[in-house]
This record gives sequence, C-alpha cells and structure tokens, in this order.
Amino acid sequence: MPASRRRARPRIEPIRWIGGPDGYLRILDQTLLPHRVRRLALRRVDQVVEAIRALRVRGAPLIGIAAAYGMVLAARRPASLEASARRLARARPTAVNLAAAVRRVRRVLGRRPTPARALAEARAIHREDAEACRRIGRAGAPLVRGNVLTICNTGHLATGGTGTAFAVLLRARPRRIFVCETRPLNQGARLTLWEARRCGLRATLVCDSAAGALMQRGLVGCVVTGADRIAANGDTANKIGTYALAVLARAHGIPFYVAAPSSTIDRRLRSGRRIPIEVRSPREIAPWTDRALNPAFDVTPARLIDGWITEAGTVRPPFR
Amino acid sequence: MPASRRRARPRIEPIRWIGGPDGYLRILDQTLLPHRVRRLALRRVDQVVEAIRALRVRGAPLIGIAAAYGMVLAARRPASLEASARRLARARPTAVNLAAAVRRVRRVLGRRPTPARALAEARAIHREDAEACRRIGRAGAPLVRGNVLTICNTGHLATGGTGTAFAVLLRARPRRIFVCETRPLNQGARLTLWEARRCGLRATLVCDSAAGALMQRGLVGCVVTGADRIAANGDTANKIGTYALAVLARAHGIPFYVAAPSSTIDRRLRSGRRIPIEVRSPREIAPWTDRALNPAFDVTPARLIDGWITEAGTVRPPFR
Repeated sequence: MPASRRRARPRIEPIRWIGGPDGYLRILDQTLLPHRVRRLALRRVDQVVEAIRALRVRGAPLIGIAAAYGMVLAARRPASLEASARRLARARPTAVNLAAAVRRVRRVLGRRPTPARALAEARAIHREDAEACRRIGRAGAPLVRGNVLTICNTGHLATGGTGTAFAVLLRARPRRIFVCETRPLNQGARLTLWEARRCGLRATLVCDSAAGALMQRGLVGCVVTGADRIAANGDTANKIGTYALAVLARAHGIPFYVAAPSSTIDRRLRSGRRIPIEVRSPREIAPWTDRALNPAFDVTPARLIDGWITEAGTVRPPFR
Repeated sequence: MPASRRRARPRIEPIRWIGGPDGYLRILDQTLLPHRVRRLALRRVDQVVEAIRALRVRGAPLIGIAAAYGMVLAARRPASLEASARRLARARPTAVNLAAAVRRVRRVLGRRPTPARALAEARAIHREDAEACRRIGRAGAPLVRGNVLTICNTGHLATGGTGTAFAVLLRARPRRIFVCETRPLNQGARLTLWEARRCGLRATLVCDSAAGALMQRGLVGCVVTGADRIAANGDTANKIGTYALAVLARAHGIPFYVAAPSSTIDRRLRSGRRIPIEVRSPREIAPWTDRALNPAFDVTPARLIDGWITEAGTVRPPFR
C-alpha cells in the first residue's frame, strides 16, 4: 500500500511479528472488540493454536498468516516441529489457508529448520496477502452497484492487508453498506461496524434475518462476501448464513460476489460437498442450552455466485 | 382444552386476570425468561401499555388479550376511556389483534362503560383464543412432514391457549423441531426452547442464518410460523426473518405454512404493502451502536405460502 493511502486511515493491525527470529507474535484479541483493544503476546505454539481456536485471531487469510508465524515458534524445537505443524494446521478445519500456509513454511524449512527461515517465509506470506488484498479491491470495485450487503468481517481484521470483500468496499465506497450481525459471534456487529467507522464507510447493522426483507424492499444493489475455502468447481464455503444470502440474492435478481485471494482455492476438492464444516459449541448461540446445532460455515454452490474476485482479477462463471 | 390434556403438561400461564372487575392483570414478564420466572401485577392502563411495548407480554394473540384486560382498567375511569383505548390500541403497530381486541371491548361498553362488562368481554376474547389454538392444532397437524422449522415464539407464551404454530407442533409431535434463535430479542432461543422442553418436544436451536443450510442438507420437512397480521389477499406480516424463510423454503421445494387465528386477518387491507412495520431500537441488536436498522417484522407475499392454518381449517392458495 502506498504510504499516502496508509496515512489516510487509522491503522488497524490484527497481527505483527515483533523482533527477529527470537521474537514473538503479537495479536489483537478480537474476541474483546469493540469494547476493548487488547494485544496479546504469543510465545508458544500452543498459544497460537488456542488463539486461532478461540477466534482471538480469525478470518481465513489471517489465520493462515498466524499459523505461518506460529511455525517460527515451532522451528525453535526441531524435535517437535512435525507435531507442532500438525496442530497449527488442524486448529480449525474449514479455511484452507491455514493448512496451506503451514505446509508452505514447512516446505522451505526442509531438513534444516531454523526460525530465521520460517520467519522469512511467514513474512512473505503476510506481505503477499496484503498485496492480494490491494488487488482484490481494485478488481472488485467496478462490480459494485448501489448499497452493498455483506456478512461477517472481511477487512483489516481478517487478512494481512485491507481485506477481501471489505477491500472492495473500501475502494468502491458505496453509499451504504448493510452489515449482517453474523450470529452467533457477531463479527459483523462487533468487528465490521467498528472497522467501517474507522475507515469512514457508512455502515448500517442489520440482523442476519433481515437481509431478505432489505432485498425485497429494493435496498440492496449487490452482495459481496469473503470465503473460507473455494473448491475446484467454485463451490464456496463461508460464514454460516452466506448460502441463504446467495439464495435470496438470486431470488431477487441481485448479483452475488465472493472476494478471496487465490490461496483460498483448494484445487484438490472437486466440489463443495467435501469441504469440512466446523461445528462449534451450542453455548456460542445461547449459554443456557446445549440443545443447539452450531455450524460455523455453509457451502454456496457455484451456480449461485456471479463472480469470484481474486488478486488475479474477477472470474465469471463457470469457475476455473 | 379438556382437563385430562391440561393435566398432562405443565402449566404455562403468561396472563391471568386476578379477581373480579376490581381486580388486576397478572402477567409473566417474558423479558426475563428463561432465567427468571417473575410475575407482574398491572393495575393501571399505562402499566399495560408499557408491558406490551417492552415485550413483557408479547405474541399477536396475547397482546390482544392483554389489551382487552387493559380495557377493564380503562373502564374504571370513563372520562379517560377513549384516550386509554387509543393508547392500548397503538401500543404496538403491526399485530392487528391488538387494535381489534380494544375495539371489540369498546363496542360492548357502549355509552355506559363498566369494568364488569369489559371483564366479561375480555374473558370471552381470552377463552375464544384458547379454543382457536386448540382448533388450529387439530387443523394443522396433518400437514406436518418431517422435521419442522419454526421462528419466534408461537406457543402458550404468545396466545391465550396452546399457541398457533406451536399448537400444530404439539399436536403433530414431529421427530425434531428446529427453532430459529429469532434475533434480536431471541424469542426462539429464550422462549420456544424453554416451552418445547416443558412440553416434551425435541427442539434444536439454530441461528436464523443457518435455516438455509439446514434446508440445503435436507433436514427440514416443512416450515410453520405464526402471523402478526394477514392482509385480505393472504400477504402475511410476521417476525423479521419469516420472509427469508419463505423464499428459502420455496427455493428448496419445502412447504411453508402460516398458523394464526382468524382474528389475525385484517380484511380492510387489500395487500401486505399497507401493513405498518414496527421499527425498534438499534440497541436491541447491539447495545454499543445506534447505526442499525431494526424492523421487527417483514411481510411474506401470499404466493410463497402453501397454507394458512386457522381455527376454521386450512386455507389453501388462493387466500380468501
């Protein structure tokens, strides 16, 4: 990002490696936003795994970056490197970026792992993601029409840069963004609303269940979401509720776009049916019950998606 | 309800008039459920209005009954009877039952209002609603197929009897009920889950946004909801999110039913476009922001509804 644009908006930095190969990973604890801005220092692999599992650091690209930095910590103990890599890669199942980033760092470490080499590769992953965000924003902005509806958080807090869907919005600056609350963990209400205000975007929070009624009233020009994993045929896993938005958008003739770096594409999966869907605790929905079903993601079939916005440009259907 | 069936399940009594015409209205404060069961004594019209506005008493049929009992209190001061009736009728805008019940009590009071006559009429409204619930359950049960998805609370806590959609479920006893959380006030998570357990129904809570994914996976056999107002053409206002469920159900070939007493039908409105939609405080969604749009209801067009289950039987499209 050119320095001039960086200065134009307040800095939101969800992750940073502090110091050299013997340094540590500093993250913003996103579970406390928007009420508290607290940073945590992670110095052990198990702390990184916990932070990913508990969603202190979240967003498909960002957990990939976090795990890559986690590999720096892992490389300090070559004897347990494989086990650490496995634990990082499996901290959450749905976003492909996580395992892919761990694999990539593991590969460059080869037979002589050193924290320095892991750090160089993690920084490269981080840098490349920031650049991908910039390009996604540029590629997606011309597609935006009218008010944009989005779900979850896809901005600075979810990536190594300005975001995926959020980068598109930052660039397009639509008149209004409708932000779905994003139950059960309220990433839209807690994170995107906060981030939009800091970036000077006009955002209006709505309940997830209100998206259909907004479309019915003609208030939504297009839908742009992020992605956690895209299968080879374009089927896209993303935050629970995304599938319903895609069905609703199609029923109202509203374009539905997915914005994601190509690191989100899992070429080994032919279709979305094989994407593992993380099921989280019922208590996240209602602390007083265990009789709840809480899938964190759903899969939107490619036929409902009007474009995949990547750093290499926009892919129109059919997806390749 | 025959005494034998009443004894078969625990008593859930959201409203009761205590004593004679000089008595008072006792309600269960539903805002505290499921954590606390607290009853409130309402002895003044303004307390009844407040209880309706704050959703201490809620559900289209039940707020009609509450307002009817409110008219007993209003009739104690004939000089302010008209003003009290207006305030009760306008406490909330969307459910037609409210204004209709007030009008009905006002009519029988004529020019010589007495609390005794108001009480007799309020009790009649209450009794008739309980009977309507029983008949709705009987009429709707044969329509139920597979697991049922429902939204909001439509049971004992929402009516003068066993409920509308919930009465259908009580009678049909499906293998499983999926209960939408019902944001922002969580009537599904707080009230329906609690009520289902007390009635021995197997209920699973889901986020509103997960309904589409459940349908996609073939887990939903039919959708049954209540209604706050039904226009003359069958367009139906109900809890925000109902419209999205109807679109999703249609997209998946799943039957979508509305269950409501005929007191919910507003023959004066030709279509749903004229139904006033209550917009509530942004703080109900997220206490930390006022940048939210919080419509409490939406309108489902008649074409998406496969049947209206009433105490007079099921009306198939076209609605009359």
